[in-house]
Amino acid sequence: MTTRYSADALTAFAIALLVEAGLDTDKAEATARILVEGDLMGHSTHGLQLLGGYLGEVEAGRMAKSGTPIVLAERPAALTWDGGCLPGPWLALEAIDAAIERAKIYGTGTVAIRRSHHIGCLAAYPLRAIEQGMALLLACSDPAAGSVAPFGAIAGRYTPNPIAGGWPLEEDDAVIFDISASTTTNGMVNRLNRLGQGGKLGGPWLVDNQGNATDDPACFLADPPGAILPLGGMDLGHKGFALGLLVEMLTSALSGHGRADAPKQWGASVFVQVIDPAAFGGREAFQRETEWLGRACRTAPVKPGDPAVRLPGERGLKLRREQQQSGVALHPEIMPSLKPWAEKLGVPLPATI
Amino acid sequence: MTTRYSADALTAFAIALLVEAGLDTDKAEATARILVEGDLMGHSTHGLQLLGGYLGEVEAGRMAKSGTPIVLAERPAALTWDGGCLPGPWLALEAIDAAIERAKIYGTGTVAIRRSHHIGCLAAYPLRAIEQGMALLLACSDPAAGSVAPFGAIAGRYTPNPIAGGWPLEEDDAVIFDISASTTTNGMVNRLNRLGQGGKLGGPWLVDNQGNATDDPACFLADPPGAILPLGGMDLGHKGFALGLLVEMLTSALSGHGRADAPKQWGASVFVQVIDPAAFGGREAFQRETEWLGRACRTAPVKPGDPAVRLPGERGLKLRREQQQSGVALHPEIMPSLKPWAEKLGVPLPATI
Repeated sequence: MTTRYSADALTAFAIALLVEAGLDTDKAEATARILVEGDLMGHSTHGLQLLGGYLGEVEAGRMAKSGTPIVLAERPAALTWDGGCLPGPWLALEAIDAAIERAKIYGTGTVAIRRSHHIGCLAAYPLRAIEQGMALLLACSDPAAGSVAPFGAIAGRYTPNPIAGGWPLEEDDAVIFDISASTTTNGMVNRLNRLGQGGKLGGPWLVDNQGNATDDPACFLADPPGAILPLGGMDLGHKGFALGLLVEMLTSALSGHGRADAPKQWGASVFVQVIDPAAFGGREAFQRETEWLGRACRTAPVKPGDPAVRLPGERGLKLRREQQQSGVALHPEIMPSLKPWAEKLGVPLPATI
Repeated sequence: MTTRYSADALTAFAIALLVEAGLDTDKAEATARILVEGDLMGHSTHGLQLLGGYLGEVEAGRMAKSGTPIVLAERPAALTWDGGCLPGPWLALEAIDAAIERAKIYGTGTVAIRRSHHIGCLAAYPLRAIEQGMALLLACSDPAAGSVAPFGAIAGRYTPNPIAGGWPLEEDDAVIFDISASTTTNGMVNRLNRLGQGGKLGGPWLVDNQGNATDDPACFLADPPGAILPLGGMDLGHKGFALGLLVEMLTSALSGHGRADAPKQWGASVFVQVIDPAAFGGREAFQRETEWLGRACRTAPVKPGDPAVRLPGERGLKLRREQQQSGVALHPEIMPSLKPWAEKLGVPLPATI
């Protein structure tokens, strides 16, 4: 039987760990909430799986415990911040709120952040804007890492570079997507290698150091290591490469800090944009179009026996509702990774359901 | 030996045809220039290949010959237009210019257009913003067509939905990308079927009406027809599906007109966004980051014997320079498709080089 925890208990547990580690309460709350959102929606490599790493960063002095971002540039509809290695979820939520205020007036609001710490699961953010009837676009890259191969190369030069976003549908429904510009993520490859049970990826998503496409995560352990292929793989990887570079432009180039500065620590360059449909063709027309297309997709014919088409985020939002009711089933790796931190920081483990 | 035409002669020829057909001179010039840009950069299905179709639309009264877009909504950094079926290249260039002016003040400028006519090759537009040191994002969809299958479906429900963009690198260099959110385009599938020589696509990019992935364009001719797979194909097509829906949101939903209105004629919903790096982390820092990453990608190791990595747009910009010098080599389909129009409208064919 799966061990389950209430989302509230997990959030309180994560807040307690982060506060004991020294974070300001508001930063601890934002970080805990976003990580648990990741698990609620089923993104098991990008929820509380990350908390141990974050606590290590706080302990090592690489994640700032308190403070505010420095405003590097400000225009009516655009902000640029130096995040000073503050916790990424707190910075990203602050940026989304600032972008929402600007979108209400100017139609769109955009924030570029340099030197944020890691921001966790991008799918955890869109509801913040959707609840106000707005659309969100969010992207990040980590200029200290480089595991994704440019199209045609056999070594990594940039990161999986997720683009996420969402917008409202009728009632409580929404489209929420969170896709990397690469075929897979570091988190997935590393987990398979950690588990060491010979597990393979779902397709030939890596390139080994000889230039062969492979589903074997072990090619990451070779010297020189293999790399992740851009979305599109060996035949259409020019598309994923373009998307990956687009994210690098929106995050590191716009914020003015990235790979050219050779940062040595885990972190993120972040791009946030909020779009207010009310400022364009209007909320009613917006909703009519998105709902019409949603229905058209959900009712499209499928192969006999196949499940109906799901919209992006549909599974995650359903799982979120279910797990809010009946508790969160954490990936088996997660609680053991947090137990040493709970002991060290004197925080009791959350009760199971 | 390949027949070549000077780009200027082709542009003058296209302008003459469009003016004879009744278009305002400025609309004819913008349309001709963008179509020839498509051929200059090697996008042979989206350059002058389209002109015959455009002339047919003018003749049938479905492409407007003169007028201006109606402003449906205006915020400081956001505009929404009803394009009234005016020529797409003219509308899109007007929108880019309007977005540039707004980006200079507000940091970004965004324009959503409903009821534009077709806008041609998206890669033809970014230089307009790049020449002013800015980044462009551009997307479109055609709410009257639906050849791309939602992930998991076996029938088309929306269009290939290109996203294009670009930004400046050093000197005359730039990144310019133009990718559909699908594996291939209608133009490519239809050309293979027109040529009827049994040509196949470069990979299993279609789904037939039984749900099998295939490289055979003939599955489009079946009843019911097959469909184009989203980028990512059978294993990672949820990513392309998300991108396709994102483009639908930015174009039809934001402009407030799309599939829900069941338009019956060829056209486009368009999204234009200009971002001014000077309003964020600054042009110098922007350029430092984009150039650093460009070099890192171009010098990444490749399989022995393989060519060096190319940045998006590199081949197109090189071909553009070469063809501006030595003339444009049109796809063999193109001039024969325009000859009847030249005779009908009394326009002499362009001289070959």
